Amino acid sequence: MTELSNKRIVLASRPSGRPSAENFRLENVPVAEPADGQVLLKLHYLSLDPYMRGRMSDAKSYAAPVALGDVMEGGTVGEVIASRHKDFAVGDMVLSHSGWQTYAVADGSVLRKLDPNAAPLTTALGVLGMPGFTAYAGLLTIGQPKAGETVVVAAASGPVGSAVGQIAKLQGARTVGIAGGADKCRALIDDFGFDVALDHYRSDFADALKQACPSGIDVYFENVGGKVFDAVVPLLNPFARVPVCGLVAQYNSTGAFDGPNRLPLLMRDILSKSLTIRGFIQRDFSEQRPAFYQAMTQWIKDGKVRYREDIADGLENAPEAFIGMLEGKNFGKLIVKIS
Amino acid sequence: MTELSNKRIVLASRPSGRPSAENFRLENVPVAEPADGQVLLKLHYLSLDPYMRGRMSDAKSYAAPVALGDVMEGGTVGEVIASRHKDFAVGDMVLSHSGWQTYAVADGSVLRKLDPNAAPLTTALGVLGMPGFTAYAGLLTIGQPKAGETVVVAAASGPVGSAVGQIAKLQGARTVGIAGGADKCRALIDDFGFDVALDHYRSDFADALKQACPSGIDVYFENVGGKVFDAVVPLLNPFARVPVCGLVAQYNSTGAFDGPNRLPLLMRDILSKSLTIRGFIQRDFSEQRPAFYQAMTQWIKDGKVRYREDIADGLENAPEAFIGMLEGKNFGKLIVKIS
Repeated sequence: MTELSNKRIVLASRPSGRPSAENFRLENVPVAEPADGQVLLKLHYLSLDPYMRGRMSDAKSYAAPVALGDVMEGGTVGEVIASRHKDFAVGDMVLSHSGWQTYAVADGSVLRKLDPNAAPLTTALGVLGMPGFTAYAGLLTIGQPKAGETVVVAAASGPVGSAVGQIAKLQGARTVGIAGGADKCRALIDDFGFDVALDHYRSDFADALKQACPSGIDVYFENVGGKVFDAVVPLLNPFARVPVCGLVAQYNSTGAFDGPNRLPLLMRDILSKSLTIRGFIQRDFSEQRPAFYQAMTQWIKDGKVRYREDIADGLENAPEAFIGMLEGKNFGKLIVKIS
Repeated sequence: MTELSNKRIVLASRPSGRPSAENFRLENVPVAEPADGQVLLKLHYLSLDPYMRGRMSDAKSYAAPVALGDVMEGGTVGEVIASRHKDFAVGDMVLSHSGWQTYAVADGSVLRKLDPNAAPLTTALGVLGMPGFTAYAGLLTIGQPKAGETVVVAAASGPVGSAVGQIAKLQGARTVGIAGGADKCRALIDDFGFDVALDHYRSDFADALKQACPSGIDVYFENVGGKVFDAVVPLLNPFARVPVCGLVAQYNSTGAFDGPNRLPLLMRDILSKSLTIRGFIQRDFSEQRPAFYQAMTQWIKDGKVRYREDIADGLENAPEAFIGMLEGKNFGKLIVKIS
């Protein structure tokens, strides 16, 4: 056991703006021994998600930043290769939050055992994991789409957005998905069943969105921020709901944003249209997790929710894949196959 | 009856920015006859409220604007002087929405009969009327203050704000009231029981607010907008709630607001702190009205909620009183004694 070497990627420096390869450092360190109640994991898959950009900064947030020199955090699927916890045996596959590395010691108490026969293991990081749950809880609890309403989803080909669109459709809503580029827009219609797909690279994007929403917008699932939000706000109907789940378009921004100041106009719309704008992270709704697993597993089995994964090969390629994701280069849930 | 002349104030022109006397016109017209199911009212009191500024503009809003040449709208207390409705007799006092005039015909179906012995008639326009209900519904439904939390209220000496502070206190919250000038701040403490009173004219207002909220802000009841909101946002705690009830500081603004653009920063805070920002008007919560009347009547009887009224004399002085209110010149619920 002590012969094993753990390859890991640590935060070498904090990015200003767009992260670059120099913000990460690959290290080799000895693998630790599990203590009583712990297991040793060989990690197979690592999830890459936009929230990790926040953890690289030391700005105040809902979660502590990753410390300089610490392993980058992230959700992982791993195999138990040594166990000192009664509930886990060698060979068990588990979901953990072990970060960007090849081996990890974890407390048995925080692990969730996975059944490789129930669904592909990677789905525990995607449609049946944090992104899927984010879509489910944010849309149903805050968005509350009703039959016949119009739901607009940004980053709609991503793991959260594609689930949001399909769950909204299951509630009887009309869905408008926004993504970047013709390929992604085609997938919105063909794979994820959106009623309308809109390319945000279009120069006439705001007009096209207005055309696509002749009855206005009742729910806007915010994943992006920036210009898309600016185009959405004038179209929001009275009593519209805006779950704010991500702002990937502005994560890399530094300093002040140029005027005019759009905040007073947003506040005016919030007041005059009785809007609700509410931020959340999936952890806010933890009590809904069992209902989510049950519903989503069934939807997938019935073919009512489909998903797409984008798998990068090798831990050493995680930084590049992550940087690309922040620019919209991935297509589907981004996962690193570690070994 | 047909000998009576109705004095009324109509919207003569739409203001650009701050309203002025020229936007209003005093007219004398014959008093109409009530039809079947209607009553004729001699109006005693008119309520003046900030929302009326919105009705003077033709910008899209939750309510239609007052048409040019139409009577300015507003809540009123009147006396039935002729009745063709079985539920109302001459001499009854009623709450109606008859606007800025001395006489009005109204459908009996939309009137609420007032008991002059239960509470002073003017309270039907204030603490027991629309402003009191706005405070009650917005604070309890959206703000949801809990014991020990910090509730900050803007325009805190006004009819909505003073009720918000006192209702929050009844829930066990710590209350910080913001008002303009030493007299109003003294009333916040002495009359309305706020824990802290802050003068927004202080040059160090943002710092003073921070000092006044050492545990951050859990509920901010937004009545004002502008600089007060900008000072509040950085102090909001995770899961803070912001009922947006009014934006009186920006009602008179025209055109674009100077940069920097604060919207992306607000969105970042909404996301990173799981904030809820929700606009409302009291009509959104109509089903809560019976519970409100019961609770508020009891609170007033028990001395747990106090109120203050500022009564202007004579319908012809309504425009000047209204314009002054938008600049914070009134002190307490502004009412016009018509006759």
